[in-house]
Amino acid sequence: MLDRQEVIKDLVSPNNSKIVMLVMDGIGDIPDKDGLTPLQRANTPNLDKVAKESDLGQTIPVLPGITPGSGPGHLGIFGYDPLKYQIGRGILEALGIDVEVGEKDVVARGNFATIDGEIIVDRRAGRPKSEESAKVVELLNEKIKQIDDVKITFYPGKEHRFVVKLTGENLGDKLEDADPQKEGKPIKYTKALDDSSLKTEKIVNKLLNEIREVLKEQPKMNFALLRGFSKYPDLPRFGEVFKLKAAAVAVYPMYRGLAKLVGMNVVSTGQTIEDEFKTVCELWDEYDFFYVHVKKTDSYGEDGNFENKVKVIEEVDKALPILLELNPDVLIVTGDHSTPCKMKAHSFHPVPLMIRAEFTRKGLSNAFNEFECARGSLGTIYAVDLMPLALAYSGRLEKYGA
Amino acid sequence: MLDRQEVIKDLVSPNNSKIVMLVMDGIGDIPDKDGLTPLQRANTPNLDKVAKESDLGQTIPVLPGITPGSGPGHLGIFGYDPLKYQIGRGILEALGIDVEVGEKDVVARGNFATIDGEIIVDRRAGRPKSEESAKVVELLNEKIKQIDDVKITFYPGKEHRFVVKLTGENLGDKLEDADPQKEGKPIKYTKALDDSSLKTEKIVNKLLNEIREVLKEQPKMNFALLRGFSKYPDLPRFGEVFKLKAAAVAVYPMYRGLAKLVGMNVVSTGQTIEDEFKTVCELWDEYDFFYVHVKKTDSYGEDGNFENKVKVIEEVDKALPILLELNPDVLIVTGDHSTPCKMKAHSFHPVPLMIRAEFTRKGLSNAFNEFECARGSLGTIYAVDLMPLALAYSGRLEKYGA
Repeated sequence: MLDRQEVIKDLVSPNNSKIVMLVMDGIGDIPDKDGLTPLQRANTPNLDKVAKESDLGQTIPVLPGITPGSGPGHLGIFGYDPLKYQIGRGILEALGIDVEVGEKDVVARGNFATIDGEIIVDRRAGRPKSEESAKVVELLNEKIKQIDDVKITFYPGKEHRFVVKLTGENLGDKLEDADPQKEGKPIKYTKALDDSSLKTEKIVNKLLNEIREVLKEQPKMNFALLRGFSKYPDLPRFGEVFKLKAAAVAVYPMYRGLAKLVGMNVVSTGQTIEDEFKTVCELWDEYDFFYVHVKKTDSYGEDGNFENKVKVIEEVDKALPILLELNPDVLIVTGDHSTPCKMKAHSFHPVPLMIRAEFTRKGLSNAFNEFECARGSLGTIYAVDLMPLALAYSGRLEKYGA
Repeated sequence: MLDRQEVIKDLVSPNNSKIVMLVMDGIGDIPDKDGLTPLQRANTPNLDKVAKESDLGQTIPVLPGITPGSGPGHLGIFGYDPLKYQIGRGILEALGIDVEVGEKDVVARGNFATIDGEIIVDRRAGRPKSEESAKVVELLNEKIKQIDDVKITFYPGKEHRFVVKLTGENLGDKLEDADPQKEGKPIKYTKALDDSSLKTEKIVNKLLNEIREVLKEQPKMNFALLRGFSKYPDLPRFGEVFKLKAAAVAVYPMYRGLAKLVGMNVVSTGQTIEDEFKTVCELWDEYDFFYVHVKKTDSYGEDGNFENKVKVIEEVDKALPILLELNPDVLIVTGDHSTPCKMKAHSFHPVPLMIRAEFTRKGLSNAFNEFECARGSLGTIYAVDLMPLALAYSGRLEKYGA
């Protein structure tokens, strides 16, 4: 596919208008027993009022039928073709726990596992509590600081998960996972997939042996599986491509990290949705573009907790006047993907979208939900086309051709 | 992006059916104070009757968010990817004032300007009346007929604008604009961007000096800026690609020129919409495809004149029975882009589309307007996909694959 960014970049002409992109993670859903989706069930007078003044539509995160992870889901709405730009799992995991990753570093996602001799008997080491596994991470950091000329650092994650970072020269990230994927199989060492990663292969395999040695007395967490070796991706800078000074308002490290990856300025904020919206107010004069991320619509979708997903939507609606009072020139409300409660997982379903601005075909819809959006005036578009629309509604795109 | 033409070309199988594509320039709009668009407000019994028998949809001229000029807007509905084919500004301006451009000619758009010494003090020479600037064009034609072996011809335009044509051998069009773009800056000569345009560079710079010499006594129009050097673009022929004998019925030179550019046969017609429709009747047996262009929906959009845009739509509706009596096998009603009255400019909003033919999913809508089209059975498509649909509804596209 043509890279839209290449076309758009040449047409962008900056101005002083303000854009707010409110992303309710995993907002799209399918009807529950009573035939309603969470967006339909929730009592949302403010979102509905915005809908009356908006163009509605729906986005396809990657391609029809493709369920995106958080990485591709966000790249799309940030205006990056998720088929062109890919973010390694190691990097995503590192972002998720706030690890600083340098240009030359290679990071991997780790699982503590239980082995019996050479055989992996539990790929998650009985899902230890995060406090327990953090202690083992501490032990590893104490015992393994360097392999050859490469510095090694471990970072604790949730339960059995951790991140390992390799810092040194000439490290490539084209490596097989050191993980047989199934229990009952023997330990698997990594293998370089190209010459630039031969050094990393050697370091990682030595590292696996050292981890095994250090952890041999542990009752359950006596080995580690390493996956998703990756370096920091080289993405065009959001600010340069779209000529926007962008602030990212997000609570969870993963989304703060994704925003940082494209070059947004990740700002401090509180823990609640209201805190996030107030942060936008406080920084209103300093930025052109605000990405505001609400996590829990996705979390409750993943839990299959319909009632709580409804409550989070109502919480967003209740806090919305904080943003509305700022009267942004362009207000976008959407998600990065759907997370239907019935599926308890991300899904491929199109994502509801509304854009409020001066020049919309307003008046068609009285509510913001999957069905109104499906018949909206924007049609069904790719998520990667959202940023061009945001720029267009804010008056930032020059005419194409005479 | 894949060039749709390449795919379609191999599937076209000619037959005797007739296609009429009625293009109301800039037809798409957004609601006015009363919440209605011009298409909704206009009293259009005939268009509404056609809507009942049609498939409705909306087109995106180039990409979501991109506002097209008339060139890209028309290339799209003519079935040419506007991102692949680009038409130089000089050519468009020349088309707009009916200048014949040969294969080897280079044309540029000119502005009369006022200079003080070396400094440009008014890029539009105080916006002279067209009659005044036409006299200066006459003077230039009288004094400057040739530079080296290249013939020079000037053509008058509106107000400060004119077109200059260079006719000779080995002329390239890869040149910088001879225009510093801003007032208060010194005169700028052109510069070749590749070797094939070195000769043109020399000629154009000599020409600028001669223009300056000829105009030195003029009170305001004492210099000229030249922009958009371009040759006639090499486009696949409409008739060959789509195997259609096509007539273009348009009043304004720009659109007659665009149709000629793709190889349609541009026919004589009168000044009114009724005249244009009658021309279709007169030529009915001679062509397979009629492109019929209505300009004033766009003109009134650009003026912000809602009432008059409504009147033009009603005028189209009133004259429509002339076309309906011909009972074309495929009748398409659409625009090349939107021109919302509130914006007084072309816009990026999707464009209403309806296609009446034998095999449509008729019956969904009772009116032709932005909102009915947004929820129509054709969905939201790219303008470049319109010609394939026209061919398909006319029974001209073979099955793809077995």
